[in-house]
Amino acid sequence: MTAPLHTLPRKVEPSLAPLMALVADGMNSVNAVILDRMQSRIPLIPALAGHLVAGGGKRMRPMLTLAGAALIGYEGDRHYKLAAAVEFIHTATLLHDDVVDGSDMRRGKKAANIIYGNPATVLVGDFLFSRSFELMTEDGAIQVLRILSNASAVIAEGEVDQLVAQRQVETSEERYLSIINAKTAALFAAACRIAAVVAERSEADELALDAYGRYLGIAFQLADDAIDYDSDASEMGKDQGDDFREGKMTLPVILAYARGSEDERAFWREAIAGNRNSDEDLATAIALIRKHDAVQATRERARDYAQRAIDAIARFPDSDAKAAMCEAAEFAVARRF
Amino acid sequence: MTAPLHTLPRKVEPSLAPLMALVADGMNSVNAVILDRMQSRIPLIPALAGHLVAGGGKRMRPMLTLAGAALIGYEGDRHYKLAAAVEFIHTATLLHDDVVDGSDMRRGKKAANIIYGNPATVLVGDFLFSRSFELMTEDGAIQVLRILSNASAVIAEGEVDQLVAQRQVETSEERYLSIINAKTAALFAAACRIAAVVAERSEADELALDAYGRYLGIAFQLADDAIDYDSDASEMGKDQGDDFREGKMTLPVILAYARGSEDERAFWREAIAGNRNSDEDLATAIALIRKHDAVQATRERARDYAQRAIDAIARFPDSDAKAAMCEAAEFAVARRF
Repeated sequence: MTAPLHTLPRKVEPSLAPLMALVADGMNSVNAVILDRMQSRIPLIPALAGHLVAGGGKRMRPMLTLAGAALIGYEGDRHYKLAAAVEFIHTATLLHDDVVDGSDMRRGKKAANIIYGNPATVLVGDFLFSRSFELMTEDGAIQVLRILSNASAVIAEGEVDQLVAQRQVETSEERYLSIINAKTAALFAAACRIAAVVAERSEADELALDAYGRYLGIAFQLADDAIDYDSDASEMGKDQGDDFREGKMTLPVILAYARGSEDERAFWREAIAGNRNSDEDLATAIALIRKHDAVQATRERARDYAQRAIDAIARFPDSDAKAAMCEAAEFAVARRF
Repeated sequence: MTAPLHTLPRKVEPSLAPLMALVADGMNSVNAVILDRMQSRIPLIPALAGHLVAGGGKRMRPMLTLAGAALIGYEGDRHYKLAAAVEFIHTATLLHDDVVDGSDMRRGKKAANIIYGNPATVLVGDFLFSRSFELMTEDGAIQVLRILSNASAVIAEGEVDQLVAQRQVETSEERYLSIINAKTAALFAAACRIAAVVAERSEADELALDAYGRYLGIAFQLADDAIDYDSDASEMGKDQGDDFREGKMTLPVILAYARGSEDERAFWREAIAGNRNSDEDLATAIALIRKHDAVQATRERARDYAQRAIDAIARFPDSDAKAAMCEAAEFAVARRF
């Protein structure tokens, strides 16, 4: 299946710049809440949280809450606190991920667990998670609490599912999609949806924003997984080959394994089991993935989901917000880092 | 300071039996919620959670929610779900504690992290924590969400504070009390308080139940910390000496260090720093603690807090519930395991 190019005209470089410009003022308010509410009487907490918070993440999820609010014309200020709550959930997840994966690097810096140790990293994650629910209760919208507590449980389920699937070479594309839907797309969807909740818009609007976020999240994750095997990428937030060495069955590997010869499959079985993880083995993996166009195919899947995200918000009137959200979907797929 | 013995008459054996009898029916409902809501489409989640949930904890916190409800004559059924939510927060905390401490044993069984590994243990803790907030949002009382999200953040702060204080021989009694107030007493207090919230009782009743739970939690933790150095204890839920080997500054050590000679302090400095942790060193530690009556003094502090718990609920009319809650406070201090 090829992407419908006529509705996704290829620019030289689709960019996040329009989205960032759209929400720049609002993000100042969100960032102020984030900085204020990661404080604690225990100095290690803001130190550890700040290492990640200051670490240069894009803050996609709170930007999406603000963009969704702009799309539907919300004029209040309740969404700033809620967008910060969303980012706290994401940050808590990243801290726990680094412990779970035994990561060395995150966003191009030493991971928090390397500097502060696993115990403190787990506990500060718990603190940020609790703090996010405190922020939500201050707002008081039970429907927002329902959406974000459900998303949090789904994320944890997705992370456990990914852990179980790790080093399982027979993981299907369907299961992989189920995992990334849970571990990544659920929070993107919730971040967008809550904008419609605070604006008291119809359930149909809620679901449209939920769908935009969900498809965008899948597109982002698919593109991330492609990038991890894309040897042209010169600059990345994490070390290339991490997924390979951790035996994660991401779509490029699933496709290369499915399309491979028996000899190639034998290589993948050994590699995913953890018996072949040298730089040379990584080079072999990348060569096989390239041979079967598996990075390209993964990007095409991502492009399909980006298009679905764009279609999900077609119902809203044209606006700067809508244009920025559509370009963000193109950016998710086109980026190389 | 001696405990006011005339208001805490020593029975041969104060017991939890009256409390357990009081809430037995209600706990069947709570346990049904716990078993139902720890399920997941990912089988590893109920397996890992069930290892701890079936592991024979007393379920003190949900029992306290139910006892508090009985004390004030609440006749509804909203508290069952909320009591389960409290137990999920506690269970999540225990799972993360085991990872943080690198525990081998929990409640006399292998700790979950030993069987399932740290990654799954962290993630299932996250799942249970999220699920607890889902349960609360189903009930919908924003005030309950406020109380429990705040308690969760305070617990995490207390755990981080304990981590920072670990192996710091100069930890003061004041700081130690601040740590156990956060890591243990906050959830006891919240568990009791929410009974008054669902029953829509006055803020004064809320605060009385909060105080009962808080003082009881401190009493329990002080008694636990005494038991870890009480060589007469023949049966314990965790290996004796764990606190010593982990370099935790609990009150028996703080008192023995404060009351010790310069030679004894030199021993404690080495031991708490982690340089003396053999069985012989543990025997030395217990001997020093005994020499300075530090277990006894810790129990006396616990007895004082138990009395404060009893006084906090004096305002309520006499009832089976009140008698059971008072005896639970005596039990907290008198138990030897």
